Amino acid sequence: MNIQHSFSHTDLALELKDELEESLEEQQAFDGIKIQQERIGERGLQETVIEIDSEEGEKQLGKPRGIYVTLEGENMAGNDGSFHEEMSECLAKRLQSLLSGKRKLLFIGLGNGEVTPDALGPLVIKNLFITRHLTGWKEIEGCPAVAALAPGVMAQTGMETGEIVEGIVKKIHPDALVVIDALAAKSSERLNRTIQISNTGIAPGSGVGNHRNEITEKTMGIPVIAIGVPTVISIPSLACDIMEAFCASQGEGMEDIFCSWPEKEKYHFLGEILGEKLWELFVTPKEIDEAVKRISYTLSEGINQFVAGRIF
Amino acid sequence: MNIQHSFSHTDLALELKDELEESLEEQQAFDGIKIQQERIGERGLQETVIEIDSEEGEKQLGKPRGIYVTLEGENMAGNDGSFHEEMSECLAKRLQSLLSGKRKLLFIGLGNGEVTPDALGPLVIKNLFITRHLTGWKEIEGCPAVAALAPGVMAQTGMETGEIVEGIVKKIHPDALVVIDALAAKSSERLNRTIQISNTGIAPGSGVGNHRNEITEKTMGIPVIAIGVPTVISIPSLACDIMEAFCASQGEGMEDIFCSWPEKEKYHFLGEILGEKLWELFVTPKEIDEAVKRISYTLSEGINQFVAGRIF
Amino acid sequence: MNIQHSFSHTDLALELKDELEESLEEQQAFDGIKIQQERIGERGLQETVIEIDSEEGEKQLGKPRGIYVTLEGENMAGNDGSFHEEMSECLAKRLQSLLSGKRKLLFIGLGNGEVTPDALGPLVIKNLFITRHLTGWKEIEGCPAVAALAPGVMAQTGMETGEIVEGIVKKIHPDALVVIDALAAKSSERLNRTIQISNTGIAPGSGVGNHRNEITEKTMGIPVIAIGVPTVISIPSLACDIMEAFCASQGEGMEDIFCSWPEKEKYHFLGEILGEKLWELFVTPKEIDEAVKRISYTLSEGINQFVAGRIF
Amino acid sequence: MNIQHSFSHTDLALELKDELEESLEEQQAFDGIKIQQERIGERGLQETVIEIDSEEGEKQLGKPRGIYVTLEGENMAGNDGSFHEEMSECLAKRLQSLLSGKRKLLFIGLGNGEVTPDALGPLVIKNLFITRHLTGWKEIEGCPAVAALAPGVMAQTGMETGEIVEGIVKKIHPDALVVIDALAAKSSERLNRTIQISNTGIAPGSGVGNHRNEITEKTMGIPVIAIGVPTVISIPSLACDIMEAFCASQGEGMEDIFCSWPEKEKYHFLGEILGEKLWELFVTPKEIDEAVKRISYTLSEGINQFVAGRIF
Repeated sequence: MNIQHSFSHTDLALELKDELEESLEEQQAFDGIKIQQERIGERGLQETVIEIDSEEGEKQLGKPRGIYVTLEGENMAGNDGSFHEEMSECLAKRLQSLLSGKRKLLFIGLGNGEVTPDALGPLVIKNLFITRHLTGWKEIEGCPAVAALAPGVMAQTGMETGEIVEGIVKKIHPDALVVIDALAAKSSERLNRTIQISNTGIAPGSGVGNHRNEITEKTMGIPVIAIGVPTVISIPSLACDIMEAFCASQGEGMEDIFCSWPEKEKYHFLGEILGEKLWELFVTPKEIDEAVKRISYTLSEGINQFVAGRIF
Repeated sequence: MNIQHSFSHTDLALELKDELEESLEEQQAFDGIKIQQERIGERGLQETVIEIDSEEGEKQLGKPRGIYVTLEGENMAGNDGSFHEEMSECLAKRLQSLLSGKRKLLFIGLGNGEVTPDALGPLVIKNLFITRHLTGWKEIEGCPAVAALAPGVMAQTGMETGEIVEGIVKKIHPDALVVIDALAAKSSERLNRTIQISNTGIAPGSGVGNHRNEITEKTMGIPVIAIGVPTVISIPSLACDIMEAFCASQGEGMEDIFCSWPEKEKYHFLGEILGEKLWELFVTPKEIDEAVKRISYTLSEGINQFVAGRIF
Repeated sequence: MNIQHSFSHTDLALELKDELEESLEEQQAFDGIKIQQERIGERGLQETVIEIDSEEGEKQLGKPRGIYVTLEGENMAGNDGSFHEEMSECLAKRLQSLLSGKRKLLFIGLGNGEVTPDALGPLVIKNLFITRHLTGWKEIEGCPAVAALAPGVMAQTGMETGEIVEGIVKKIHPDALVVIDALAAKSSERLNRTIQISNTGIAPGSGVGNHRNEITEKTMGIPVIAIGVPTVISIPSLACDIMEAFCASQGEGMEDIFCSWPEKEKYHFLGEILGEKLWELFVTPKEIDEAVKRISYTLSEGINQFVAGRIF
Repeated sequence: MNIQHSFSHTDLALELKDELEESLEEQQAFDGIKIQQERIGERGLQETVIEIDSEEGEKQLGKPRGIYVTLEGENMAGNDGSFHEEMSECLAKRLQSLLSGKRKLLFIGLGNGEVTPDALGPLVIKNLFITRHLTGWKEIEGCPAVAALAPGVMAQTGMETGEIVEGIVKKIHPDALVVIDALAAKSSERLNRTIQISNTGIAPGSGVGNHRNEITEKTMGIPVIAIGVPTVISIPSLACDIMEAFCASQGEGMEDIFCSWPEKEKYHFLGEILGEKLWELFVTPKEIDEAVKRISYTLSEGINQFVAGRIF
């Protein structure tokens, strides 16, 4: 998920669903995947809930089973304050339902605070209301107690983030973990204006058998909620866009070569022809500093509202 | 040059020269362009001096006339301290010859300090030895007096950087201006390990007739030395790399379609098929924070050595 | 005003007024000084307007003639969001009346962004809505156009801030200047919870005949509004507090030695016995990072409201 | 030690020793305290080794038993590069002898990175060569493997730093811990130019029976080396300086009241008359940003030299 380790062409369940939808023949169904969509408020905010509840669903979507909520808004990159308020409120409500009954919360801001699009997690942590040290994990007026850390990335610490978090979890015993992270998206339209909330934690290369770097209920022993916002476009997605533009420009004959292939094949093919060097790069908008500042504020507002019980 | 405004596929005269070289038939010559190359020291440091001295040369290379010195080193991205020292010394010597006799120097760090690869200029400014306020522009023990500013980018200030700089130049009357900036390169091999020093200042879109944003001797009334290091790859270059990999993978027939075209045509074509959206993105390595910190230190060391007259 | 250059025991006209009040015999009056106080809203916000309109008043208060508005609130250091909103609104209204008819505004954040209590000005600038580059100084929907800069301090630039600002003012011709700065206060009670707004600009050591460092209508040629918040306690004030505590503890005989002296004499005396070294120090609360972040947000909110015409 | 929690008038064993020396009658001895002093190199660098090896010594000096090495240099606040090199080398040698045979090292940068004088620890961590993730705790060419973290302060995390560190130590099992911290000194002469290295770890309020916040061999189960540099003056020390200046100015009679008292009595008395409010403040030089940047670089250089085995 973390831009340091992302190899997927998208971290958004929503975009994987869209691809799957396109590739399905008529009459075919999503096996083991439930989808619900809803418009919220008056400013074009849309909520999509994707639930994967079987191995079949995991395979189809390439994501571990669990709930993936996506909040999307057209105007999010802009300065419209009231739109951000609506987004914050939505996030607060979702956290309330996913963290119901949890009273000792540890928030972890993943990512490298020194690389602008990866600084989202650390920036959110800076604006949370921290209370655990005031009460020693006891609730204050019915509100859960909050601890938080932005541990940095492996190149800065020499440790897997999972090691740091596990050590702390075993020492202070929170009820639940909330990790905040920057994601990679396929479409630049979704950058900085989409929030994904899931109860699956963080599991890069899931299914590959490498659990060293997982931050999940399995490795931590407590529920792990992940909040993510795409701030970078993956190189494979950008390459795919470029290829499609090219093939389209070359007329009919060419279209068969690339555009008509199934998504999975496209990415597999690009993986083959592009060297490893490209995986060490990332793509992000020139005004990423403003966007990350704004969206980190929206997230911390939503979390603070949830913690304070100010949900309307 | 500034990543906010870069539209060219490379800011390096060296890469433009390489392209030109490839496209020239045997026996053809670079008209109005002189080139000199030299190995320096024992660690593989290479210096290339490109001098454009006529309108013909300007047209061929697409750069205004003047001297472009490029220092390149294979090991620069690494942690080899002694290599960085060699680079700093080279920079110091070049500045001494370009700024000979100038005693009142104003250094300007261009770019957005909040966007990691664009923070190079502001970071260099932070490590300079500032002396003008101690002496009121008078030399100290034969060393030129130094003033400096990192004004930020237009989205932060509402002003063209050129406006800010011109206002200050007219108030404090330096003998020469040195601007430090992050550049875009074509090859990821050159990122963070190439220094370009030129006496042409900064002229985005040169020839286009828009001088609003120029920082050159013409607009400032004093010599302007530009020091730049590529920290991003331009989107057109990345697209070109991807296209070439694709065409190569498709066998002989395809090669004619793209790979064999002249460079200029490639970029023109890509500009046509890719939308404007892509121009709002930039591409940079995942470990850009470390790279920019290290190279900014090499630059400030070189400048400080030049100013202090510690040149060996 | 700037903590780099502050020699006064307080930058707040309000505290100077309080001292004066205490020293006046019954029946005496403030000559040339008008004072108005008002409670605003329901959360204990208090506004004091001090107007100095004659040379006599200047001498008495030790400040140049002009209007000094002070907004004070007991709860400002806390996290009470609605209180901050009230403060922002008050600031917006005051700016509206002081800047009535000015359509081209340049905001300058004074101070050193690398020293926490001095970073107030630079932090405010970071959160302003900058518009001048979008319109070229033209109003947008009736709102004034905004440019801004945080130039840094003399040790960073080698230039007087006044030189930088004057150069830019002469180049871009704004209608008015607004400078934001960290101040020194006498009482730790007022730290981070008091806003002073004046139409006198910044004139350190006023009356001393040194205008090099002034940012005033006289030096800039346009009105200069100064917004300041005390974030440090002056060393003379701290020394005075310590002395008073000591003398009080020593019983009656001692009280005559220090406590009963007039304020001016106390500071003069402390200036004599304390070495210059002490003037190179500053005193600030341990949680200054949180306080400065919060109050900078309150200021930028107020300014943004004023600019957008959202005043209620 | 940390400026957030400092209640002592000095964290330097050296200054406690000086006070003790002054108060001892002729012929009296330091019981349980060994002292050695040595000049190093040609630039006025002085090393003092204080060893407390009995309960008697602990009581006399008010510090837990162990070794306290102090490196002092007159020119450290200045820009003399070669002096800093000498200091770095000295630190490297001391670390080598204190950490002999330890191959898995965890470095912790204590303090609040957002408050300039407290940012020393976090800044040092940023410049260390981190290697553990490359080798999985295995040595590289005979050099110990390095992990590091700057966890922030309790107000930011809701956790005692000791809790975070203990959790991580129990997870990754280093051989030794090195903590870097900003200290409080009595004399402004020593600010930013004195390094204290001890093998006692961090034990605020030692002897008070509160071990919650200790980072020592007792709480961590492995040796803990502490590296500290004074960046703030304690309020009690400043108060003491002011009082002494005052009493001296009042002639003979007054001197008996304060100046002639034993040090301990002075601080006890000041603690009584000054309110708690003063303990929430700190005092630091106006140019603390430059000083902390420079000294953090000296420390990270020394640590990197020690780790790389580049000791001369």
